Amino acid sequence: MSARAGIVVTGTEVLTGRVQDLNGPWVADRLLELGVELAHITICGDRPGDIEAQLRFLAAEGVDLIVTSGGLGPTADDMTVETVARFAGRELVLDKELEATIGDIVTRLMARFPNVDPDAIRASNRKQALVPDGAHILDPVGTAPGVVVPGTPTVVVLPGPPRELQPMWPRALQTPAVQEAIAGRTTYRQEMLRMFGLPESGLADTLREAERTVAGFDRLEITTCLRRGELEIVTRFEPDAADSYIGLVALLREHHGEALFSEDGSRIDDQIARLLAGRRIATAESCTGGLLAARLTDLPGSSAYVVGGAVAYANQAKAEVVGVDPALIDTHGAVSEPVAEAMADGALAKFGADTAVAITGIAGPGGGTDEKPVGTVCFTVKLADGTSVTRTMRLPGGRSDIRERSTTVAMHLLRRVLT
Amino acid sequence: MSARAGIVVTGTEVLTGRVQDLNGPWVADRLLELGVELAHITICGDRPGDIEAQLRFLAAEGVDLIVTSGGLGPTADDMTVETVARFAGRELVLDKELEATIGDIVTRLMARFPNVDPDAIRASNRKQALVPDGAHILDPVGTAPGVVVPGTPTVVVLPGPPRELQPMWPRALQTPAVQEAIAGRTTYRQEMLRMFGLPESGLADTLREAERTVAGFDRLEITTCLRRGELEIVTRFEPDAADSYIGLVALLREHHGEALFSEDGSRIDDQIARLLAGRRIATAESCTGGLLAARLTDLPGSSAYVVGGAVAYANQAKAEVVGVDPALIDTHGAVSEPVAEAMADGALAKFGADTAVAITGIAGPGGGTDEKPVGTVCFTVKLADGTSVTRTMRLPGGRSDIRERSTTVAMHLLRRVLT
Repeated sequence: MSARAGIVVTGTEVLTGRVQDLNGPWVADRLLELGVELAHITICGDRPGDIEAQLRFLAAEGVDLIVTSGGLGPTADDMTVETVARFAGRELVLDKELEATIGDIVTRLMARFPNVDPDAIRASNRKQALVPDGAHILDPVGTAPGVVVPGTPTVVVLPGPPRELQPMWPRALQTPAVQEAIAGRTTYRQEMLRMFGLPESGLADTLREAERTVAGFDRLEITTCLRRGELEIVTRFEPDAADSYIGLVALLREHHGEALFSEDGSRIDDQIARLLAGRRIATAESCTGGLLAARLTDLPGSSAYVVGGAVAYANQAKAEVVGVDPALIDTHGAVSEPVAEAMADGALAKFGADTAVAITGIAGPGGGTDEKPVGTVCFTVKLADGTSVTRTMRLPGGRSDIRERSTTVAMHLLRRVLT
Repeated sequence: MSARAGIVVTGTEVLTGRVQDLNGPWVADRLLELGVELAHITICGDRPGDIEAQLRFLAAEGVDLIVTSGGLGPTADDMTVETVARFAGRELVLDKELEATIGDIVTRLMARFPNVDPDAIRASNRKQALVPDGAHILDPVGTAPGVVVPGTPTVVVLPGPPRELQPMWPRALQTPAVQEAIAGRTTYRQEMLRMFGLPESGLADTLREAERTVAGFDRLEITTCLRRGELEIVTRFEPDAADSYIGLVALLREHHGEALFSEDGSRIDDQIARLLAGRRIATAESCTGGLLAARLTDLPGSSAYVVGGAVAYANQAKAEVVGVDPALIDTHGAVSEPVAEAMADGALAKFGADTAVAITGIAGPGGGTDEKPVGTVCFTVKLADGTSVTRTMRLPGGRSDIRERSTTVAMHLLRRVLT
């Protein structure tokens, strides 16, 4: 019997759907990797009675570990620590050292807000230094500390903001209480493949074939997910089923070699970063309005190969800033392959780049025609040596889908040109 | 005492985070509109034991209504109806009329797949015509029917795909069993305020003051949430507590008039869109790499006022594309107020714009110095009439936080200049 866990997500803004919960799925993934079986995720508002009811429910269901997120802030509606202490039958005690740590952090933050009374702030943050007696403290990543409260079940209390929760998780994992709680886990391997340019049903077909032809296929737990226009295939298996996984990958490679761009789970963004090493790239974007440049510069170190980009949203900007001949726009329309090519040429020339990507399209909701409906997007990738690929696609979805999907198509076109 | 409800989301793909749950937040919104108090959302996999445990938990918590989503398909792992029947102590009975309805739908669907044995399909779909005795049937939108099972609590069983669940909801609402379950609901008003430039703990201070000075403050249910560098304050109250809400807003306006930019819940993006009507804006971005241009063009209709933008990531691009004097960069550094000002000038000139925003900063993780640490970002907003505001900020967080937060700061600086 594997170790079982439950997740309690707190926050009225999450319960009411105003903020999308990112912590439940993220922690679920981590538990899965560890081989801990996740039974329940429960979500409630900032009401101690509801939080406590969920903790009791999970305990009654016999989970070994509960992970909570949210409700650790300085305001009065943040009550998770207090509630967990009551649930675990432990007193709240003031941790002087933690109080000093939080005080330091807050004083530094407050330097930017000269009008706020620092004493009042410190008082409101003292609340955050109250921890259940005997709990293990996880030092703040932002201003809120987490705690690990040993018991049956052990409760890991983490802050709500994902950028605070995620770095805290490995530290929680190292505590003896958590190690003990998850001692019964099964070890799994988990591998991820990524594909682009294959419909989900095409993959389903191949998986049915694999069921017949790959020995031990039933020992592979496969989940597929369509995301950002790419297919993610996650396979979970016990280590001795590795040969079956190798058989599956071989079959996918055989049938979908073109589409299968990542066998080690690496993202297209990381692959492009490697391919751009030593190059100088510039972008020229219309409908994506800067999203491609933003995506390329999302990675640390991208200043080594990104020169810059032009967002040529208005036709006038296409002409004056990127140097597209206005006659080309008059003849073919702003969304056309000749204009995409001219935009790529302009990006190469204006930015002194050796690699250029241009995107022009109709993201909607207006602006579509019978001939060029909403979702029509033209792409050009061009290198200084004259190599050039141009494609026109019809992308599905609404405005933001089309814009985001366009950046993914551009990344894959770039990959094809650079490999 | 208001009517209370719980939501049970089923599906292993949702529990493990492979598929984002859209039904919980959607149903939560509908319940909120109705004035039904939502206490819990619970998520579990396709295991009858876990589903039943969640139903029992919610019943024990005294909810009047449970809404489930998912697990209504024809395959063996879809077991929600069976589980709800057992929970409600009702037999499963075959509904002949429903069987015929599903048969018709499936026959039509299968016409496209001539190789599939229609008898086998019909048999597997007969399962979907088994309903709890005495339940109210909700005719399929796709192929799966929903059911309303009267009781204490009443359970509404809906399919997982949002495009099937959403049209079925109003029909479920009309059934006598649901009407009875939600009879005790209270009508609430909900209002949202937004602030920028105030730390959450500063707000906490004022809320503590409000507790003492605003009459009827305890009748206001206030939740605060820090998002994208802004504070969202949502207040829910019964209509006759409106005066207390007015008192709260007056106090916030008095203490934080500068920070309080939205009293009607409108987002800064929409406010900026309105302020830009009739104008022509261009951007010049360094560290944000196109994020600001992407944000401005995120809204439909933005082509009316966005001319374009330059992503001047490399210094060479700042000089050649935006026209920043290289001597300025040599003297003050690329991240400096004079360079931000020159970038704004360049955006006005190169794009023929009347409104420009420039951002240059250090997003990290590398590139920081003692004098200009990671997070140092300079902003200029400049209008064609010469009006100009420049600010330098130190923003917290990691690379992506700094980049995103920078776009929010820029939007608010723009708002201040345009109002």
